Amino acid sequence: MTDTPLSRPSGRPASALRAVAITRGFTRHAEGSVLVEFGDTRVLCTASVEESVPPFLRGKGEGWVTAEYGMLPRSTHTRSAREAAKGKQSGRTQEIQRLIGRSLRAIVDLKALGERQITLDCDVLQADGGTRTASITGACIALHDALESLVASGKLAANPMKELVAAISVGIYAGQPVLDLDYVEDSNCDTDMNVVMTESGGIVEIQGTAEGAPFSRSELDALLGLADQGISELIAAQKQALAC
Amino acid sequence: MTDTPLSRPSGRPASALRAVAITRGFTRHAEGSVLVEFGDTRVLCTASVEESVPPFLRGKGEGWVTAEYGMLPRSTHTRSAREAAKGKQSGRTQEIQRLIGRSLRAIVDLKALGERQITLDCDVLQADGGTRTASITGACIALHDALESLVASGKLAANPMKELVAAISVGIYAGQPVLDLDYVEDSNCDTDMNVVMTESGGIVEIQGTAEGAPFSRSELDALLGLADQGISELIAAQKQALAC
Amino acid sequence: MTDTPLSRPSGRPASALRAVAITRGFTRHAEGSVLVEFGDTRVLCTASVEESVPPFLRGKGEGWVTAEYGMLPRSTHTRSAREAAKGKQSGRTQEIQRLIGRSLRAIVDLKALGERQITLDCDVLQADGGTRTASITGACIALHDALESLVASGKLAANPMKELVAAISVGIYAGQPVLDLDYVEDSNCDTDMNVVMTESGGIVEIQGTAEGAPFSRSELDALLGLADQGISELIAAQKQALAC
Amino acid sequence: MTDTPLSRPSGRPASALRAVAITRGFTRHAEGSVLVEFGDTRVLCTASVEESVPPFLRGKGEGWVTAEYGMLPRSTHTRSAREAAKGKQSGRTQEIQRLIGRSLRAIVDLKALGERQITLDCDVLQADGGTRTASITGACIALHDALESLVASGKLAANPMKELVAAISVGIYAGQPVLDLDYVEDSNCDTDMNVVMTESGGIVEIQGTAEGAPFSRSELDALLGLADQGISELIAAQKQALAC
Amino acid sequence: MTDTPLSRPSGRPASALRAVAITRGFTRHAEGSVLVEFGDTRVLCTASVEESVPPFLRGKGEGWVTAEYGMLPRSTHTRSAREAAKGKQSGRTQEIQRLIGRSLRAIVDLKALGERQITLDCDVLQADGGTRTASITGACIALHDALESLVASGKLAANPMKELVAAISVGIYAGQPVLDLDYVEDSNCDTDMNVVMTESGGIVEIQGTAEGAPFSRSELDALLGLADQGISELIAAQKQALAC
Amino acid sequence: MTDTPLSRPSGRPASALRAVAITRGFTRHAEGSVLVEFGDTRVLCTASVEESVPPFLRGKGEGWVTAEYGMLPRSTHTRSAREAAKGKQSGRTQEIQRLIGRSLRAIVDLKALGERQITLDCDVLQADGGTRTASITGACIALHDALESLVASGKLAANPMKELVAAISVGIYAGQPVLDLDYVEDSNCDTDMNVVMTESGGIVEIQGTAEGAPFSRSELDALLGLADQGISELIAAQKQALAC
Repeated sequence: MTDTPLSRPSGRPASALRAVAITRGFTRHAEGSVLVEFGDTRVLCTASVEESVPPFLRGKGEGWVTAEYGMLPRSTHTRSAREAAKGKQSGRTQEIQRLIGRSLRAIVDLKALGERQITLDCDVLQADGGTRTASITGACIALHDALESLVASGKLAANPMKELVAAISVGIYAGQPVLDLDYVEDSNCDTDMNVVMTESGGIVEIQGTAEGAPFSRSELDALLGLADQGISELIAAQKQALAC
Repeated sequence: MTDTPLSRPSGRPASALRAVAITRGFTRHAEGSVLVEFGDTRVLCTASVEESVPPFLRGKGEGWVTAEYGMLPRSTHTRSAREAAKGKQSGRTQEIQRLIGRSLRAIVDLKALGERQITLDCDVLQADGGTRTASITGACIALHDALESLVASGKLAANPMKELVAAISVGIYAGQPVLDLDYVEDSNCDTDMNVVMTESGGIVEIQGTAEGAPFSRSELDALLGLADQGISELIAAQKQALAC
Repeated sequence: MTDTPLSRPSGRPASALRAVAITRGFTRHAEGSVLVEFGDTRVLCTASVEESVPPFLRGKGEGWVTAEYGMLPRSTHTRSAREAAKGKQSGRTQEIQRLIGRSLRAIVDLKALGERQITLDCDVLQADGGTRTASITGACIALHDALESLVASGKLAANPMKELVAAISVGIYAGQPVLDLDYVEDSNCDTDMNVVMTESGGIVEIQGTAEGAPFSRSELDALLGLADQGISELIAAQKQALAC
Repeated sequence: MTDTPLSRPSGRPASALRAVAITRGFTRHAEGSVLVEFGDTRVLCTASVEESVPPFLRGKGEGWVTAEYGMLPRSTHTRSAREAAKGKQSGRTQEIQRLIGRSLRAIVDLKALGERQITLDCDVLQADGGTRTASITGACIALHDALESLVASGKLAANPMKELVAAISVGIYAGQPVLDLDYVEDSNCDTDMNVVMTESGGIVEIQGTAEGAPFSRSELDALLGLADQGISELIAAQKQALAC
Repeated sequence: MTDTPLSRPSGRPASALRAVAITRGFTRHAEGSVLVEFGDTRVLCTASVEESVPPFLRGKGEGWVTAEYGMLPRSTHTRSAREAAKGKQSGRTQEIQRLIGRSLRAIVDLKALGERQITLDCDVLQADGGTRTASITGACIALHDALESLVASGKLAANPMKELVAAISVGIYAGQPVLDLDYVEDSNCDTDMNVVMTESGGIVEIQGTAEGAPFSRSELDALLGLADQGISELIAAQKQALAC
Repeated sequence: MTDTPLSRPSGRPASALRAVAITRGFTRHAEGSVLVEFGDTRVLCTASVEESVPPFLRGKGEGWVTAEYGMLPRSTHTRSAREAAKGKQSGRTQEIQRLIGRSLRAIVDLKALGERQITLDCDVLQADGGTRTASITGACIALHDALESLVASGKLAANPMKELVAAISVGIYAGQPVLDLDYVEDSNCDTDMNVVMTESGGIVEIQGTAEGAPFSRSELDALLGLADQGISELIAAQKQALAC
């Protein structure tokens, strides 16, 4: 895709990701711990192994992968109320953590995992748009490392992760499809779409919302093209991180 | 689209909607009250007008449209716990009511609505798959009627609804794209997608999830084609209901 | 009792019930499902069978009958907040569901029921006064049908319901005892009393409240007389519904 | 009424109250503070004056009287969970505090009270049956004293309490109507009824429940007779306390 | 310590406790029940024995002692909201009940207690400063009595309480260290410290806070001296109560 | 103090702090943002300025400083439940955040701050003992930077921080006083004490608890000596961080 001239607030070409960084082993207690950065968005993703499964799965010989998501109160431009103090998680929080969980379950052979659960905690240290896509991308690597630790300790014969998964946002900003929206772009775009895809190009999730005017089928096609390209680059970054 | 031979549990052809019924004026207190039926799925949608807006909009001269969603405990095959008794709404409930609200705001000129709020309550009396898509489709008509009541009482000069909106589910069942999944089909499909579109063919929301294997771009295209057709039929049913 | 001339807002004679309708099989998943109507008051009562009992009854060889009550947000003249969204049930809701549960347990042989629980969900679709009395009257039939389903499936040898139960409100409106108050009458009466009686004329519950001036013993006697007559008519309506 | 021979667990004649004690000024901060004892049941009732009313009454020139009820965790034979720790009040608690509030509002001229609220806190220090009837009987005196303090401080020209109110339980124990049930009697009776009456003999509340077999109209009449007598004795005890 | 001239609001010398009263057997259901008074502060402390332990201790052959704390809404100068109605315990409440529990566990041989739990409920009937120190001092005696009841019933061979424990507040009022602050003094002091000590002079807890200016090491020493003296007097009062 | 030979799990001499690191500007949105490390304990402290005060201070011309505390679920050795998901903050969390708030208010001239509030969020990224003392030490610098930003923007004429404050833990491990307990030492010590002191040596808070045997006055003196030394070193580290 050739980028047409466009003045994004970020100054990036329409099809350019922000700088991506994936740091493994960021904290020491978790079986997997990754700091993922999409530009100024920074999310700490930890993977915790528990040798039991939720009640609905007990005795079925299958494992489970789930996720929880949170934003530190001052990860945002102005301070947000702490959900633990308010006594409940917002609808947005629950929507995001359900999305992360589904995305990761799509790439794990849950039967091969056995009766254990892995919980991915994605906590946003600094937010600048795209926290859910960064979370999925980083949590995939934390999950990988936790699964490797099970192999290393002899609890699993092989890593039950089938392939990598990553996520990116696309949107229509000032009438033009753009990749990887930061906070300013996200607040001013007409359409916002999050796409989750696997290493082999399969679509796991697609969630598009017309914030302003509805979007057309051809705009959707352009957005999907951008997402496909962005996810290829993210998968490459994940592979590079795993190679270290 | 030509339907290939397929044995759906419902016995319907791949591109067939269930019987759709839209009954206006189902209850008497609400400004708009619609019973919508997609086969055995029955949802009561009421629209309530309130002459004030949420705090974040006060003094801006704009209105708001929001939604709440609930399932009666025994609308489902086995009884579900009552959310009021549990003391909180599930993540699923919140996700759905946020989706309904966004879908309806997309078709209303909120400035023309003025500083008032309309709340759509979508309560599922009987569930057989597709409760969120039925809710959006029915709530659109309840909202229409509530807006008409504002015109009739002279509070609004014209109905600020720009066009109709409807929603339908599509999915890949036994390897083949099908329209309007019922509960049994939904529980056994590989991919489940909800599409919200306007009368003029604009896409408002698209939410697709690979429950089993990821789906390909060509499968996505087929699903979008089915959804487009289904929504045209729903819009026709809405228009017919409004003509009564 | 001879009705003295009186101008009730409803135009009904002092001793007249509103039109009563009892529709069985209103929804399809529940073991018992009844739509009960007392004039404009419409309540959906479902009975759900569960093959276990609450902890305090485990191992005692006895069953349990319990009830939950709710009002759809726009069942009322102006919209009421959704209890699931507020995160708790009001005192009024809890009082009513406890009353319904006690009333129904009074007519069931809990030992004969065996270690299973039946939950009656009474959800008000449209409210115009008397929702708790309509709930008891309709839930009795839903419970009957659920018990019959246990007999039909061979789980019970005989229906453990000992007799029917029904409930009605009486009150002192403009100084005169009247039967079956609608919303307008209820809001303006001095005394409001709910009476629950069995088919054989036994009193199960009596709850009378002086909203304005205290009432005398002779007024109480007159109210009880009206209630006795009204309940006889409701029991007749229940029998007719069961005969269909 | 002549007492027929009967062996009550308490050893009392069927129509005998337990020893009643009403101690004013039990604690020092509240505008009214009464320890009321019905035998071993001991309830601390305090009345607190607040110079504002709940939102629904603002600007109407009327006052409000409300009540809250609680049991200390070990007021009971075995320890009950603390409601503050559980995070919610039980349905029973809410039912009782609503009853106390209604009973007291019935004897106060709320317009004469002016825009202020009086809250009665009824906290059970020791429970042996009849905590709600003792609460009403004691709270009436605490309320009286709080109203007197408003007169004494010149905020009110006259005490707006119209007359006294008291409450007692009656029940059918071993087939015979008895007055003022203690815990053991209450746990084993067939019918339990609470009656609230004013000094002048008006009925304010009547709440009767058949715990076992339904009760007949003649049993109801006998219970009402006993209650009438018991309340006369309680009113006399209240007057004596006020005379000190 | 010689008292220098000082005008405390209470008129007490700097090193004087308020009048202390410890009444055993204040209520009848609890295994231990003590009303403790430090001047106008009155706390009801009950000890309840339960023949099981919390999950984290099951099967370890050890017992547990825990505490809950509450203030009646009108124990205070102006009415405080009821925590059960607000739906949660304040941070202050939780801090106090954790302190009481730790203080009492320090003097009990939990292994000798066996797998049972004793819960101390400390409910403030009237507050005038020092409710947490009065609670610890009174709860120690209630706990003693509950343990004695286990010995009396043959469940324990010997009382597993190792020694007595008591608590007192000290503070710097108007520049001078004083003992046992009442509400007025506490509200106006610069430093407030609570000290928990055993009969043998060991320190169990020390919690000092500079409300205004930080305090020096020599001030701390003076406060500890006062506390040591006050606790000796409280232990003496406890022993006298046990001797009755 | 000369360190006697002792085998601490950490291998440190009894009076040695862990490596301390204070990184300013760790995240970009907050007015003050500090990552503080005490060995493996890492806490992110942000300071957020809000131009309003809590209700109890409105119109008094004074400011407020408050704190919230949280642990990321996998900051600990085994995963802890997320407080936002559980719907409430534990007693421990509330105790700690109240302590942090009091400690910081002690060093700020709240009148000079004017009617604005500064909230310190202390979120533990990795825990290894001493999270509350690290939080206070780091939050002091985040608060300093936020106050400087108010000076820089002309909202304050001078920084209202009177002096620095820091905190450290001390305890009795294997019979000997030691400084700055890590997780293993903390889990096995007999006495645990947290001390908060200012730059000028004033004591702000002292909280000591005998986990096992009570401690003596001479042990307390030794602990206070160690704390005094440790805090001097922390204040030096704070000054060095501010000098960068």
